[in-house]
Amino acid sequence: MIKLFDHPLSGNCYKVRLLLNQLGAPYERVFVDIFKGAHQSLEHQDMNPNMKIPVLQDKDFTMWESNAILLYLGRKFAPNDLFPQDPEAFGRVAQWLLFGKTTIDPNLALARYYMRFLTPEERDENEILKLHEQGYKALTVLDDHLSQNEFLRGAYSIADIGCYPYVALSPEGGFDLTPYSSVLSWCERIKSTPGYIGMED
Amino acid sequence: MIKLFDHPLSGNCYKVRLLLNQLGAPYERVFVDIFKGAHQSLEHQDMNPNMKIPVLQDKDFTMWESNAILLYLGRKFAPNDLFPQDPEAFGRVAQWLLFGKTTIDPNLALARYYMRFLTPEERDENEILKLHEQGYKALTVLDDHLSQNEFLRGAYSIADIGCYPYVALSPEGGFDLTPYSSVLSWCERIKSTPGYIGMED
Repeated sequence: MIKLFDHPLSGNCYKVRLLLNQLGAPYERVFVDIFKGAHQSLEHQDMNPNMKIPVLQDKDFTMWESNAILLYLGRKFAPNDLFPQDPEAFGRVAQWLLFGKTTIDPNLALARYYMRFLTPEERDENEILKLHEQGYKALTVLDDHLSQNEFLRGAYSIADIGCYPYVALSPEGGFDLTPYSSVLSWCERIKSTPGYIGMED
Repeated sequence: MIKLFDHPLSGNCYKVRLLLNQLGAPYERVFVDIFKGAHQSLEHQDMNPNMKIPVLQDKDFTMWESNAILLYLGRKFAPNDLFPQDPEAFGRVAQWLLFGKTTIDPNLALARYYMRFLTPEERDENEILKLHEQGYKALTVLDDHLSQNEFLRGAYSIADIGCYPYVALSPEGGFDLTPYSSVLSWCERIKSTPGYIGMED
């Protein structure tokens, strides 16, 4: 059975659980206590030298990087709509998964980390301002695109699964999503897809 | 013919040129004068709302995000070694392409940008220190992996093409690659692959 090395508060782990659930693939969660540094243990480093979660184990194949795990699971298990084979549709999915990791997550996930898990004394307010400025730019790109597209590549795909978690969690990082009505509607549409689970399900 | 919206000093554009050259695919370069803000023009925003280069146009299909462009071109044109179809090999390629964008480029490319293109007065030395610290961690992960693997997924692939440019350019950002001998040998092996071109070729 697939094993997911996981933490319930990580949006990156949640992405993988959301896809696995939508694929109907059975999996086992292995709790990694990142707040006690378990991701830095030698045992974890053997699986992921970059010392992060999630890590996926599928029999004797072990891999890391959440959006890459979505691509792997998509390639191996997903029907053509979630992971399209057509080069242009596949390229578009790849584009948004990469945009997620260059532009959405570094700003939205990091701001959420500072605001939710650090004390005011531990935070650098100037850095949070910068993350908000860059994060709102990312949200504007998303909102404009989603005002004309139901999902990121048109139809629902792993691109949405990769980009959704830290957008949905961004209010915990101090973001106000109210002006981004197309983003908000997109979140609602994702919640209506078959097999959807929330972060705490 | 494929059009690449390009700047000769961008490592992200160079990645795409390197792959196109190794595929033997004819393409035309369109110069985007980023130092004069041409990537922020309305015309450019129509192609890439995220206002960056490279942008690829393949007939009427336009896309952006350099490592995603490698995946698209790989899916459409590359033989199985450069872009493997097997799920595990594909997953491994995706993992390193994502690691490139979460961990290599944000540190190595940004440090290079500050050191090469900003004056000492414009730079934030503390930020450069942080980029160096994180960048050396990324180089350690790469070096350990490459001490046991000829290329990132074993055989040469688009994963190497995605990760190589900003590693090779990192000395311009103040990085000393001397202790990373496996990384240096990997760079030499890449230079020997058929159809290799340098950044200025």
